[in-house]
Amino acid sequence: MGKRVRVKAPATVSNLNCGFDVLGFAVSEPYDIVELELTDTATVDIEEIRGCDSLSTDPEKNVVGAVLRAMASASGTTAGFRVIIEKGIMPGSGIGSSAASSAAAALAANLLLANRFTLIELVRFAMEGERLASGTAHADNVAPALYGGITLVRSYNPLDIVRLNVPHELFCVIIHPELEIKTSVARGLLDPQLPLSTAVRQWGNVGGLVAGLFSEDYDLIGRSLEDYVAEPKRAGLIPGFREMKERAIASGALGAGISGSGPSVFALCRGEASAAGVMMSMQEVMLKARINYKSYLSPVSLKGADIC
Amino acid sequence: MGKRVRVKAPATVSNLNCGFDVLGFAVSEPYDIVELELTDTATVDIEEIRGCDSLSTDPEKNVVGAVLRAMASASGTTAGFRVIIEKGIMPGSGIGSSAASSAAAALAANLLLANRFTLIELVRFAMEGERLASGTAHADNVAPALYGGITLVRSYNPLDIVRLNVPHELFCVIIHPELEIKTSVARGLLDPQLPLSTAVRQWGNVGGLVAGLFSEDYDLIGRSLEDYVAEPKRAGLIPGFREMKERAIASGALGAGISGSGPSVFALCRGEASAAGVMMSMQEVMLKARINYKSYLSPVSLKGADIC
Repeated sequence: MGKRVRVKAPATVSNLNCGFDVLGFAVSEPYDIVELELTDTATVDIEEIRGCDSLSTDPEKNVVGAVLRAMASASGTTAGFRVIIEKGIMPGSGIGSSAASSAAAALAANLLLANRFTLIELVRFAMEGERLASGTAHADNVAPALYGGITLVRSYNPLDIVRLNVPHELFCVIIHPELEIKTSVARGLLDPQLPLSTAVRQWGNVGGLVAGLFSEDYDLIGRSLEDYVAEPKRAGLIPGFREMKERAIASGALGAGISGSGPSVFALCRGEASAAGVMMSMQEVMLKARINYKSYLSPVSLKGADIC
Repeated sequence: MGKRVRVKAPATVSNLNCGFDVLGFAVSEPYDIVELELTDTATVDIEEIRGCDSLSTDPEKNVVGAVLRAMASASGTTAGFRVIIEKGIMPGSGIGSSAASSAAAALAANLLLANRFTLIELVRFAMEGERLASGTAHADNVAPALYGGITLVRSYNPLDIVRLNVPHELFCVIIHPELEIKTSVARGLLDPQLPLSTAVRQWGNVGGLVAGLFSEDYDLIGRSLEDYVAEPKRAGLIPGFREMKERAIASGALGAGISGSGPSVFALCRGEASAAGVMMSMQEVMLKARINYKSYLSPVSLKGADIC
């Protein structure tokens, strides 16, 4: 039996309203686990995917396969990988399901390949998983899935990931209404152009949110959680979205919005007790509307992908 | 003789490349001085404007008049003001000439009116000066002129000014080629719409710049000083701009760009010695091209408008 490693990577909330395509953070649950074993033949063999029936074990069609192929090629290894994936995060939930599997695979493979790659290189490999899953190699989920905490993708060319300060009382509620929204569909709703005045308002909030995170000014964080770009177009895709957002804020959330391209809805809160109340108010909306959902309450987590 | 006060307000650099219309900072020179005396008649009388021949002493046509009228009206005072303005900042230079006079007038009048207004209210009054000068009541110069330091206009409605951290080694070089660019002309060059992908790059940099300021990461500040919106359109208005920018960065500046709508060019540097070298390299471009210019070297100043 070859060398084995088991790595866990967290779900991630991206965009954070104003920070479309650039901001994201990690939570402590849910998470995916990827178990890798080094083999003698230069192939990727996905033995099993636990917790999810809809994903392919064909390495050409699975994000873990895409990541491992890219890493095998870049490292020049003649070895291959036997893979078991444990999905805790449902595909299409908007909380970085493909990113978590990709990040876990990248870190696990690096451990088996004598840590030859740096963390930012692992982000690049994990982005190959995102490319397979959504058609674009975006980094706003894989970056926090690997680094933990709150990250900013300042630039793609060159790739520049900035770690932001995480106020220690920051908690996150996630409600995942059980329907799937394809990232490609959600992206198709967006206008390819936007008015300069709208863009200025959006980047005013990006500046405010980053300032709020560093100065641990929770009110400023809340005021900055506005989205003039994606939410107006995508809110209609998510049943109960507006009501959940209103209820969350009325119950004391700093702000709320769509996680990634949805359908998951997130709320940021100051303190765990506040988050618990906010979660209940959002759950009530789902219960009244008879929509099946999953819910999570978690600190904004400093931990990214790690051995487990 | 009525109560008198003399207030000095600094020049300001706005936009900071990525932060178009939202970011700005104060320098320690040049500056304007506004001297006010309270009078018994409810009029604004601009007695003298020193250091500049091109501005009108008609209070209907001078930014100081616009600010004082707005404040007199809001306060319900029956008193008036006799005004002397000392212009250290040339109109149309792109370093907040109208903002400095407006900010100085607002603070001076507030001192004579028993400090009845808060600082954010003074920003609103000073914006009336900007409205007269440029047609839009923007706050990205008056905010740092009043607060000092580096400010973010997170939102106009409601007006929300955020003070950012000022790394103590941050110095600024300003080169003002002696030609005038009207803000209205510079604004007319901008596209009213921009591609979403361009906007995303711009707000990635806004996030990076704010993170760099708080974490005092000078390299990150430099990497974030990119402008995909205004600079590509406006650079051609300023003779020698591209060469000054290149020379500044080659000489060690963190970054450089157009101050406000130009023609002044600014460079941000780490430390005064570095700034001195950068200033010389930029001056050489002006000298070779035989363009008259003024130049300033200053820390990014924590001081806003103040009694002098």
